[in-house]
Amino acid sequence: MKIKNDLLLRAATGVVIERVPVWMMRQAGRILPQYRALRAKAGSFKNVVKDPSLACEVTLQPVDELGVDAAIIFSDILVISEAMNLNYEIIEKKGVFFEETVATKKDVEQLKVVNDLEEIGYTIEAIKLVKQELGDKIPLIGFAGCPWTLFAYMTEGKGSKTFAKARTMLYQTPEVAHELLAMITQSTIFYLKEQIKAGVDIVQIFDSHAGILSPALFHTFALPYIREICEAITEVPIIVFAKGVGYAMEELNSLPCQVLGLDWTMSPQLVRNQIGMEKSLQGNLDPCLLYANPAYIQKATASMLNAFGHQKHIANLGHGLEPTTPLDGIKCFIDTVKAYEYVAS
Amino acid sequence: MKIKNDLLLRAATGVVIERVPVWMMRQAGRILPQYRALRAKAGSFKNVVKDPSLACEVTLQPVDELGVDAAIIFSDILVISEAMNLNYEIIEKKGVFFEETVATKKDVEQLKVVNDLEEIGYTIEAIKLVKQELGDKIPLIGFAGCPWTLFAYMTEGKGSKTFAKARTMLYQTPEVAHELLAMITQSTIFYLKEQIKAGVDIVQIFDSHAGILSPALFHTFALPYIREICEAITEVPIIVFAKGVGYAMEELNSLPCQVLGLDWTMSPQLVRNQIGMEKSLQGNLDPCLLYANPAYIQKATASMLNAFGHQKHIANLGHGLEPTTPLDGIKCFIDTVKAYEYVAS
Repeated sequence: MKIKNDLLLRAATGVVIERVPVWMMRQAGRILPQYRALRAKAGSFKNVVKDPSLACEVTLQPVDELGVDAAIIFSDILVISEAMNLNYEIIEKKGVFFEETVATKKDVEQLKVVNDLEEIGYTIEAIKLVKQELGDKIPLIGFAGCPWTLFAYMTEGKGSKTFAKARTMLYQTPEVAHELLAMITQSTIFYLKEQIKAGVDIVQIFDSHAGILSPALFHTFALPYIREICEAITEVPIIVFAKGVGYAMEELNSLPCQVLGLDWTMSPQLVRNQIGMEKSLQGNLDPCLLYANPAYIQKATASMLNAFGHQKHIANLGHGLEPTTPLDGIKCFIDTVKAYEYVAS
Repeated sequence: MKIKNDLLLRAATGVVIERVPVWMMRQAGRILPQYRALRAKAGSFKNVVKDPSLACEVTLQPVDELGVDAAIIFSDILVISEAMNLNYEIIEKKGVFFEETVATKKDVEQLKVVNDLEEIGYTIEAIKLVKQELGDKIPLIGFAGCPWTLFAYMTEGKGSKTFAKARTMLYQTPEVAHELLAMITQSTIFYLKEQIKAGVDIVQIFDSHAGILSPALFHTFALPYIREICEAITEVPIIVFAKGVGYAMEELNSLPCQVLGLDWTMSPQLVRNQIGMEKSLQGNLDPCLLYANPAYIQKATASMLNAFGHQKHIANLGHGLEPTTPLDGIKCFIDTVKAYEYVAS
């Protein structure tokens, strides 16, 4: 099915675009009053994720409301941990919590590699529903967490500023760490391929906690598994968003993926100077900037668009939307991208 | 008074050294059983900080126990916030908590610029006691938080992965932010000068949360105030440790300071290539590495020392010690640095 507004897919694959496409990480969720109402009724975040028709509804909420150029399936990177046999909870105002964590070889052996739809069928069903409802309007983005980020949660058991327990395991028992990372990688490849079969047009993988690794650890425990995923996913374009690893742009540039996401601390111009023009880039406005007044948002957005240039760019934030972001600020950002006229310098 | 072991001061100021000096961020504190016993008796962390004789004792604990080449005064970067009239607590297992935070111009006007010893005299007294006890054995390091990091806590009210409230203020009311930052800067300069009068031989300023700013924000709201402090402190060498801003090494190199601290995500060789040989560098072993076995620690430490070269380097971790780090790992790191023989390549 040919997508009518395929700006995102063209920008991702380096085909000429007449304007820069825009979507936002966490565009479906707490920023929208209609989501907050639906979630209150559903009882919890996980209830929404696990109900295909609710997940479909939430995925579609921002499409007309905000006028974005892509939808992203409403789910959670940790569904894979659960499908591997390690349950988690989202505790109100506290965040992720795993009652049991992985520490030893024996713990790893209790886990399974995901290779059927039994445990993650709900997200695949949700994707099918979204594709039916969305039709050929705009592309649908699938996603998964990168192996290191899932590993960090599964071993630390909760969010953390330093993930010291997770990092310590990489130094103390590297072979056990590699075993777990390989299992996560296999599960993720299966999961992404099922998302693609169900209809997603492009996928993004998130390495949200890449930035707390030393370059040596990133090189050994994160990048090889990202590469394995990129090599396995050949059906659709892939966006790799590794947060906080500005130092590794050249290595990331060597991945067989189409798009690299930049966080808000990276300079688009510096990155272009480093990696050249082969890959497309996504990003990277500071999400906190959307709390500012419209004139400020317009100016900063225009300046960001100029810094990326007009081609091979997908406009986005440099991190997920903060839940309390005012809708006016969000709409101002989107409208500014869509109205932007490129001035060649 | 001429310091007997002045390796740290020579390394900081670019004088030739026969071996690389070593100390560790958070070397005084929870890693030592004798500290844990003292703190249990004192009742709380702040009770130790505010009692000059206890703070002196804790400062000296690692000196013989670990054999480090410098002591660092036991205190807390947030004592300045409290002296400015904004109280905070350290809540067990949760961290920093401010009952009131700064949000408006009116809030800023409730604060005072610190210009007498009334509120911070305890740390100054502790420094005098340490200098008496320590004699001319090794140098004593004084310290303070950088203005942005203090601002982040005073406006956010607690630790945070993103400090979204603090960053939002920079976009919404930049002039109020600058006003608060200027007051913190003046207070910090006063505080550091008093530390120097009391006897510290070198000072370090910590911008622990620099890494969550976009380059534009770092340039506007962090760097100018760091510069102001560096320009004001001419009596002793100054170490600037701005965490997570690998992209800003050239700007940091333009500061009138002697030493730049590197966090564990930065590559010493890349930094040297960028900034040349003028400044000394400090760092940067990943603190989690000290949980590994001795052979691993020795190898990683040697590789780090090689990467920095043998001159203009102060060996340290790339972040504070994790409280549960095994003493054996810590001692292995220190002994490896002290026994290291430089092999010219």
